[in-house]
Amino acid sequence: MSGNTYGKLFTVTTAGESHGPALVAIVDGCPPGLEISLDDLQRDLDRRKPGTSRHTTQRQEADEVEILSGVFEGRTTGCAIGLLIRNTDQKSKDYSAIKDLFRPAHADYTYHHKYGERDYRGGGRSSARETAMRVAAGAIAKKYLASQGIVIRGYMSQLGPIEIPFKTWDSVEQNAFFCPDPDKVPELEAYMDQLRRDQDSVGAKITVVAEGVMPGLGEPIFDRLDAELAHALMSINAVKGVEIGAGFACVAQRGTEHRDELTPDGFLSNNAGGILGGISSGQPIVAHLALKPTSSITTPGRSIDIHGNPVDVITKGRHDPCVGIRATPIAEAMMAIVLMDHLLRHRGQNADVRVSTPVLGQL
Amino acid sequence: MSGNTYGKLFTVTTAGESHGPALVAIVDGCPPGLEISLDDLQRDLDRRKPGTSRHTTQRQEADEVEILSGVFEGRTTGCAIGLLIRNTDQKSKDYSAIKDLFRPAHADYTYHHKYGERDYRGGGRSSARETAMRVAAGAIAKKYLASQGIVIRGYMSQLGPIEIPFKTWDSVEQNAFFCPDPDKVPELEAYMDQLRRDQDSVGAKITVVAEGVMPGLGEPIFDRLDAELAHALMSINAVKGVEIGAGFACVAQRGTEHRDELTPDGFLSNNAGGILGGISSGQPIVAHLALKPTSSITTPGRSIDIHGNPVDVITKGRHDPCVGIRATPIAEAMMAIVLMDHLLRHRGQNADVRVSTPVLGQL
Amino acid sequence: MSGNTYGKLFTVTTAGESHGPALVAIVDGCPPGLEISLDDLQRDLDRRKPGTSRHTTQRQEADEVEILSGVFEGRTTGCAIGLLIRNTDQKSKDYSAIKDLFRPAHADYTYHHKYGERDYRGGGRSSARETAMRVAAGAIAKKYLASQGIVIRGYMSQLGPIEIPFKTWDSVEQNAFFCPDPDKVPELEAYMDQLRRDQDSVGAKITVVAEGVMPGLGEPIFDRLDAELAHALMSINAVKGVEIGAGFACVAQRGTEHRDELTPDGFLSNNAGGILGGISSGQPIVAHLALKPTSSITTPGRSIDIHGNPVDVITKGRHDPCVGIRATPIAEAMMAIVLMDHLLRHRGQNADVRVSTPVLGQL
Amino acid sequence: MSGNTYGKLFTVTTAGESHGPALVAIVDGCPPGLEISLDDLQRDLDRRKPGTSRHTTQRQEADEVEILSGVFEGRTTGCAIGLLIRNTDQKSKDYSAIKDLFRPAHADYTYHHKYGERDYRGGGRSSARETAMRVAAGAIAKKYLASQGIVIRGYMSQLGPIEIPFKTWDSVEQNAFFCPDPDKVPELEAYMDQLRRDQDSVGAKITVVAEGVMPGLGEPIFDRLDAELAHALMSINAVKGVEIGAGFACVAQRGTEHRDELTPDGFLSNNAGGILGGISSGQPIVAHLALKPTSSITTPGRSIDIHGNPVDVITKGRHDPCVGIRATPIAEAMMAIVLMDHLLRHRGQNADVRVSTPVLGQL
Repeated sequence: MSGNTYGKLFTVTTAGESHGPALVAIVDGCPPGLEISLDDLQRDLDRRKPGTSRHTTQRQEADEVEILSGVFEGRTTGCAIGLLIRNTDQKSKDYSAIKDLFRPAHADYTYHHKYGERDYRGGGRSSARETAMRVAAGAIAKKYLASQGIVIRGYMSQLGPIEIPFKTWDSVEQNAFFCPDPDKVPELEAYMDQLRRDQDSVGAKITVVAEGVMPGLGEPIFDRLDAELAHALMSINAVKGVEIGAGFACVAQRGTEHRDELTPDGFLSNNAGGILGGISSGQPIVAHLALKPTSSITTPGRSIDIHGNPVDVITKGRHDPCVGIRATPIAEAMMAIVLMDHLLRHRGQNADVRVSTPVLGQL
Repeated sequence: MSGNTYGKLFTVTTAGESHGPALVAIVDGCPPGLEISLDDLQRDLDRRKPGTSRHTTQRQEADEVEILSGVFEGRTTGCAIGLLIRNTDQKSKDYSAIKDLFRPAHADYTYHHKYGERDYRGGGRSSARETAMRVAAGAIAKKYLASQGIVIRGYMSQLGPIEIPFKTWDSVEQNAFFCPDPDKVPELEAYMDQLRRDQDSVGAKITVVAEGVMPGLGEPIFDRLDAELAHALMSINAVKGVEIGAGFACVAQRGTEHRDELTPDGFLSNNAGGILGGISSGQPIVAHLALKPTSSITTPGRSIDIHGNPVDVITKGRHDPCVGIRATPIAEAMMAIVLMDHLLRHRGQNADVRVSTPVLGQL
Repeated sequence: MSGNTYGKLFTVTTAGESHGPALVAIVDGCPPGLEISLDDLQRDLDRRKPGTSRHTTQRQEADEVEILSGVFEGRTTGCAIGLLIRNTDQKSKDYSAIKDLFRPAHADYTYHHKYGERDYRGGGRSSARETAMRVAAGAIAKKYLASQGIVIRGYMSQLGPIEIPFKTWDSVEQNAFFCPDPDKVPELEAYMDQLRRDQDSVGAKITVVAEGVMPGLGEPIFDRLDAELAHALMSINAVKGVEIGAGFACVAQRGTEHRDELTPDGFLSNNAGGILGGISSGQPIVAHLALKPTSSITTPGRSIDIHGNPVDVITKGRHDPCVGIRATPIAEAMMAIVLMDHLLRHRGQNADVRVSTPVLGQL
Repeated sequence: MSGNTYGKLFTVTTAGESHGPALVAIVDGCPPGLEISLDDLQRDLDRRKPGTSRHTTQRQEADEVEILSGVFEGRTTGCAIGLLIRNTDQKSKDYSAIKDLFRPAHADYTYHHKYGERDYRGGGRSSARETAMRVAAGAIAKKYLASQGIVIRGYMSQLGPIEIPFKTWDSVEQNAFFCPDPDKVPELEAYMDQLRRDQDSVGAKITVVAEGVMPGLGEPIFDRLDAELAHALMSINAVKGVEIGAGFACVAQRGTEHRDELTPDGFLSNNAGGILGGISSGQPIVAHLALKPTSSITTPGRSIDIHGNPVDVITKGRHDPCVGIRATPIAEAMMAIVLMDHLLRHRGQNADVRVSTPVLGQL
């Protein structure tokens, strides 16, 4: 199947380059009758949009989405939904200097070897610009999931060396970092200001949580819910690691410590991150992702050109010094797409199942 | 598509429960003309096999595989390969006591809610027993990849609190832990002996490395090579985290530190873990996975039965106190299946591509 | 995806050659809780089985199926179902003479060019022997569909030049031909007896009908129900044509004649064959398939060997002079698999839909 | 997978309704480096375009396609290709009268029951308008296949009762019918003129031929080349039957007559239609499809409304009296997409295969 499609029943297929005319997506399998408006999509697109604070790239994109099909009189028809976002602020001249060389730690080298051809303008298809369409498609999934009682939210849990323990969802939308602790924001701002002066970039850690997920989602043995989340989240640009629940901390845990005990009142802990045996347990689903520091920085780096000659590369253009800052809505979108797909797959097979057994789910 | 199938061109479909009559797999898409023997499969099956040291479950399974189809006169025909492993040491009586209750941190609760029905004998489909078929299928992939110069090997990089820096591949097959440092083995043995006395279990971290991978494998944007590896590795029982290259360490890295610079002599570092923009770079591909401590322990834990009543659960039967110990061949198999699939997908689309550009790849 | 897998939610993956040790299948996505026994599978296997009359091949195969997984205490668990049928009457010596030559109108030539390798014993994977597994898997689908009120039956509608208008389902299981008119049977027997004396083979036409199908199955625009039926039925060995409803007769029809008018009492005709716009209408689904005369005949035919030299080929061994005679259960199985898959896909997306509009469906 | 996606390595995903803002497609998996221009796409779009003769619908659509991505400096990059066609001549007011009733033999009834929701304007997604995108995507496949020596052409082989034996390709593009015999054209014109006076519609038969196809394409057992062609061709609006080679004629054929004998100079006949055992043989691939008479006619027909009340329906608007007339480019496109996909799948698995055996292929 297409490497540009995600999902099996609820499928998202996208196309579009950083500096081409437009981004486009086809979202298929959405249940009919869902009320959907441009606002539903725009809200999340605006959360991801560049240029809204001094801490992200200064590229200006309205990211206005047009619905081409699949929605009629304000409701989904069940037919494939076409989405279009025109690129409006591409400045190709910024990139011509790097046409024949490989920026270190970019996809230039690998795209060149894979395809022979390369749209070198702003990274082409490898640019994070494509994530706008993930967010638009994810907004449709979120809307349907919300109608089923499922809420998906994310936040920044670490910026470079600064760990950010979760404090309150109320803070997350009140600052440019999706930081869940308002008292941490000045520290983050100071760190980013210094980073820009250093002409450097930094990594970040994002946490995404889905609450209200019914038990039963996930398709063993290969399409376990955690495996699909790992796939979807790792497919986001710059992501180098994914954890579910306790994640790598479980390496040093003992079984007596890790196992989430059950009582008639619910689970007593959530080391599992809401997934047991690859299937949702009814607890909140918790995933963490690590984003690397972007390699588009103005500090020169050693590289080679396409003929193999050594060169020093400075990546100009307009870039995010921390791509993690805008990653929260993207991670939410990918989690929404996965849960949506699995909700439909689950009920396709198991619509008949009736279990008279308590559904737990606290913590 | 089936949740029990992995891959798109090279596909592995499996079935079979812990205490049913047999495990079975159908491996499709293997190139014809590959010399394959039972020994090729048995070698890795034996590395995963239970009961070979005192540190793993005492279940005795020969894990003898039969090739049912797709191989003729010692070579693959290009047709689907059927594989069969009979279960020989299932003791169903061990499990009848837990029929109506949910073992904490097991898949009991989630399988029950998903399907209504449950094969409670030894975990049924959720048991790690199914991984035998991953290993058998992976051995076929490994054999073909080896013919293309690709070698896949893994080792244990952490056992509970004990970190194990890589020292030498020579050590890995010389001990029960796949430990790459012979001097560490006594410490691991002592730790495991104490753990058994404590009636507890512990987590582990495994590292898998593929060397000799050509640049170009991976299908953006959703089927990036790292995303597929995350999917495949996270689908292994007990895995709660996956990292590529620097992984979560990149959160605190700066761009100047993280980026792998290129010179005419090769890459100068490998924070990327051999993957840039979701495509292999020619460097070794490096992945780490975190395995949780198994929840099958004899120390009692709080739980409920299917009627919602509180119970205390002791998991008897024969179990691994550290499932990570036998996970190395499984992780290798899954990495092999992913690389194999992507090698075929890549050449399907890009067989015409000829690039007269140096292939780097050191480190 | 694997060319040996059919279906997207209800998937059937098979492997196995004519003269290898066994046939194997993995059926995934079956709803849990379905009562299934070996008898359910064996009944249809026996209907397809060779050697039950003088009009089919004299190969003796018990075609006894073993269920390896996915069924526990007589009910499906929702996990992948493994099926195994051992080959017991393969006589490989019959075939060694044709190792290096291409039988005319067989798959020998094309398998050789595709794979380079070829299991020449009895056609290997290209033998109709593999259809046993389609029938076994189809029996599971039939059982579930029956629980939803859907009944699938087929009959022979033409044998060579002899057209067989439908008369009664009661006749179909009473003769070796699946002939729906008992008065036609002697004519068919006489024709076949003469055909054997002529050392020749002949084509046939089969009709399959599904009754009780709810409106709504089929996924436009590419996975229309008729398109999937065409795929599934054309994938049966020897099939060269598929029609839905009026089929090729509609070429000469006018719109006023072809269109199936609706009244409050139901449709007035069924030229559509129960499918409008690629979606089931509630009317019976009707498909016809054309099977070619087998090319395995003892009358010599011109061909070449693998070096390009001309040869005369006589195909010995045990063959069906009319492969259409045993095709009815296979066609039923494939229709069942398609409907099953689409029933699950449909409810995955559209489980919420409630329409207060009459369901028609007569004729 | 999405019902709006066709193909596994070369995939075509489409969206768009008859009277919505636009049609859109994403074509993925195209090999990089293929020279492609708007003209390549427009040529076939113009062949399918409505309103070019008095025998087709008078809707005026420029069908101008825009390439949104995947093509850079005139060559494909290997990344997903986005295509957009704006609808320009939708007249929604024509359709409001039929909002609450089901036109006989239309998809109205089935879409209503499947989705609950329905875009009633001009048939919405069920309109043949979507086939424009099949043609645009098919043009890309055709261009690549041509570079491999494969040529795909089609013609009308029957219009209503008038059979049209193949005479010459030269004639096909010289008339509005894709008629391969210039002497037949006046008869076809007269027939159509009378049909319009009768306010009726009629069926047609189209034949598509691929020449220059290498042996080896097709993936047994379910994704046989003939099975996939049947799927793809049956998925075209109004198609009710598909034949490969001799098709239904083989029912009455004997084996001695049907089998295509081989000599060192080539095959002596082509009853197989270029496919043996589901794999291309090197002979021309020949498929026939039957298209039903459109049900959009102004002669009143009995039907019901969504409340179950009887109504008489006259379908106004602008319609094709014979949808078969514009079907030739669509059938070519679908055959091209199938062959393209299978060429890539084949070389993905079998790129290593070298066979020193003559490739036949005459007739």
